[in-house]
Amino acid sequence: MNAITFRSDVTVELVKADATDSDVATAARVSTIGGSHDRVVDLSKDRGLINYLMRDRHGSPFEHNSLTFYVEAPIFVAREHFRHRVGWSYNEASGRYKELEPTFYVPAPDRNLVQVGKPGAYTFEPGTPIQALFARSTMEQSYVDAYEAYAALLRAGVAREVARSVLPVGTYTSYYATCNARSLMHFLGLRTIREGSTFPSFPQREIEMVAEKMEAAFAELMPLTYEAFERNGRVAP
Amino acid sequence: MNAITFRSDVTVELVKADATDSDVATAARVSTIGGSHDRVVDLSKDRGLINYLMRDRHGSPFEHNSLTFYVEAPIFVAREHFRHRVGWSYNEASGRYKELEPTFYVPAPDRNLVQVGKPGAYTFEPGTPIQALFARSTMEQSYVDAYEAYAALLRAGVAREVARSVLPVGTYTSYYATCNARSLMHFLGLRTIREGSTFPSFPQREIEMVAEKMEAAFAELMPLTYEAFERNGRVAP
Amino acid sequence: MNAITFRSDVTVELVKADATDSDVATAARVSTIGGSHDRVVDLSKDRGLINYLMRDRHGSPFEHNSLTFYVEAPIFVAREHFRHRVGWSYNEASGRYKELEPTFYVPAPDRNLVQVGKPGAYTFEPGTPIQALFARSTMEQSYVDAYEAYAALLRAGVAREVARSVLPVGTYTSYYATCNARSLMHFLGLRTIREGSTFPSFPQREIEMVAEKMEAAFAELMPLTYEAFERNGRVAP
Amino acid sequence: MNAITFRSDVTVELVKADATDSDVATAARVSTIGGSHDRVVDLSKDRGLINYLMRDRHGSPFEHNSLTFYVEAPIFVAREHFRHRVGWSYNEASGRYKELEPTFYVPAPDRNLVQVGKPGAYTFEPGTPIQALFARSTMEQSYVDAYEAYAALLRAGVAREVARSVLPVGTYTSYYATCNARSLMHFLGLRTIREGSTFPSFPQREIEMVAEKMEAAFAELMPLTYEAFERNGRVAP
Repeated sequence: MNAITFRSDVTVELVKADATDSDVATAARVSTIGGSHDRVVDLSKDRGLINYLMRDRHGSPFEHNSLTFYVEAPIFVAREHFRHRVGWSYNEASGRYKELEPTFYVPAPDRNLVQVGKPGAYTFEPGTPIQALFARSTMEQSYVDAYEAYAALLRAGVAREVARSVLPVGTYTSYYATCNARSLMHFLGLRTIREGSTFPSFPQREIEMVAEKMEAAFAELMPLTYEAFERNGRVAP
Repeated sequence: MNAITFRSDVTVELVKADATDSDVATAARVSTIGGSHDRVVDLSKDRGLINYLMRDRHGSPFEHNSLTFYVEAPIFVAREHFRHRVGWSYNEASGRYKELEPTFYVPAPDRNLVQVGKPGAYTFEPGTPIQALFARSTMEQSYVDAYEAYAALLRAGVAREVARSVLPVGTYTSYYATCNARSLMHFLGLRTIREGSTFPSFPQREIEMVAEKMEAAFAELMPLTYEAFERNGRVAP
Repeated sequence: MNAITFRSDVTVELVKADATDSDVATAARVSTIGGSHDRVVDLSKDRGLINYLMRDRHGSPFEHNSLTFYVEAPIFVAREHFRHRVGWSYNEASGRYKELEPTFYVPAPDRNLVQVGKPGAYTFEPGTPIQALFARSTMEQSYVDAYEAYAALLRAGVAREVARSVLPVGTYTSYYATCNARSLMHFLGLRTIREGSTFPSFPQREIEMVAEKMEAAFAELMPLTYEAFERNGRVAP
Repeated sequence: MNAITFRSDVTVELVKADATDSDVATAARVSTIGGSHDRVVDLSKDRGLINYLMRDRHGSPFEHNSLTFYVEAPIFVAREHFRHRVGWSYNEASGRYKELEPTFYVPAPDRNLVQVGKPGAYTFEPGTPIQALFARSTMEQSYVDAYEAYAALLRAGVAREVARSVLPVGTYTSYYATCNARSLMHFLGLRTIREGSTFPSFPQREIEMVAEKMEAAFAELMPLTYEAFERNGRVAP
């Protein structure tokens, strides 16, 4: 049996990207200028144009670009991520085709553990040290037990696709996710908590960790688009 | 703690549908007749028209209809189902908003347990009685342990969204899924194994069980469309 | 040659619908209640729930329904409509498969004809009676000439798909369009001009005429959803 | 008034691409290997893997890439192109925001002009020289008349969005179109006529001209993927 690993973080690597602010402006200018793409590049005016597109919700110019991320995160995070259907492509490690590895999610010490409030208006609070200790030890032991059952099933000749049934949703999975600036902004708008957002969002902290890393890569690749996203209330156009 | 339940089946209920063969034919005839929808109904010729549309892969006429299913299936099945992004809408029981119930998947006696062959060319075989017995008892014990950990975490005040990390992917979830005939046929083509299909498919048995129940509802609602799907190699147009 | 017709209106007929407020609430409740669909109907609380879903942008519960419209509108309107890709299905009269009819768009007397302002901030004003008269007579004559050329090409044995090249984008086309409440609200948000909208929109008047008729059907079918859409700034969730 | 131009060709320029065979193989290997993307590159085995993915219709690995084209084509071609909703993004010259240019489509001498056969089974034949001459002169004159009406309306102060109603669908438009290998193969499968295709297609010649140019760019960028597409009957996975 492989050595069991516990993690509290997520991996988000920008594998590749073909995504610049100029792509947005060039695609938009075909509306007003038309003609060949050589004639529709005017970088000096890009900031104003991009802000105008974002503000008035002209979304399609933000789609002519592509970002591919490699992600390692717990299955329950992947489950939330894969609910984003439009403008997202996924390939994930398969529990049918490969033996899954014993890496499991445990909350970091600074992860708020206790949920307070009523449905539709929850907040999260730290909890006591004893709660944190209990949570961590209970989760770790449960993960160890589950993986032992998985390994025992495999040793007994049971097919991977059946044996995996006992693995918890806290098991880490890995996947490629490809999106464009528009679908990424939609994801960021729903999966991060930020003051000043036009619409409040209530993501689980663990998918917000994925979103934050994607946001950092996006901000670096497309600074004018990102600035306009921030300035206009973090609403995807 | 709720009583633990083990299931080997899936629930698929047709909640509602607005889907008839006539919808397909009427939408198609606007191409060739145009005019108001009163003038484009000619039921007597629907069979030939629908077969022609299917054969020559005119897909859009199969989209003007809607089927909504309620499904209960293990999380690993829902995970496969939700990979279908186009023409499918989902709402699922949330492990953040509700305490999940202790219902878990165990293979039925007739479920082939052993995987034989090399990557890309697997077949499944029954396995021995002792394997089946061992699989079932190991899985059941693992589920019981996991749910006890979940319940203990909840009792200790840990938020549902954290505590659920220990729940296995064999836990049953429930969801609504809405599709149209085109997206449903695409799903059926990939998630069932049938002789005579133009393209072979290799679904896991458990999602095939969901697909088979959806197929039965579809065949009843849209017999001419279903007949054309079968006659033309079960390829979604 | 068929008799030439000039129109200033659009036809939008609700062909069929499977769309109620209860569909929204029921799909949403699977998140918090789960279980079978029989247990998740609680009509008395639907208004509050639907408003909450709209406000906090939980979009997927609004997708488990379907509306099919039959539309007659100028080609330039269909062109704008068909830009809506997600959650919309279309079938249109084909200039390849049928001879197109000589029905053409002319602005109604109350259609503002003159565009004032600079790019990104246009307004439209009525224009003078002489402008209106000139516009109408010029357009009508141009349509007549174009259709005569089309008819002459067909008489000469030229294929419909080639001959139609000369037909103007003011020619009426007809199509079926199927959507759900979510995709419809997205369309309405972008294709109508309303005070009090969170985001301003700048649709061409002719597609707004289509949108207004769809909005009326939507408001009647799903009054609670429509009320929530209005109350929350006409932003699709 | 600008000088009128008649064209029989289409422009398709590959503006940019982030699309290699290795992207396909790397995304696919996450299913079977998982782990970081450094470990999932094995170029020597890519040909076999890609052919297997295509044959067995594993479509998602073909989505982690992006191609952006600039196209100039008649409006009736853009209309057909924009029917492709999934995996395609568009931005087009706007008749609302800019004055459209007088460039119009006329059939080339080798374009079959005459349609023979019955609905669902048409073939196209060359037609006589006199037909070709008549077609060309009739179309050119009709275009000139239409553009004169358009220019007159603009001179009279009529808004561009109204005046354009008289412009024919043979008018050239320009647009950016972004897709991925999967959505492009779907487009090519439907919009080209090739012997040996698993499914026959019946595109209009003018959109096939667009498809052929896109196919050439695709074959150069992703030779192994293209080879597998050809070998497996030109069916998008």
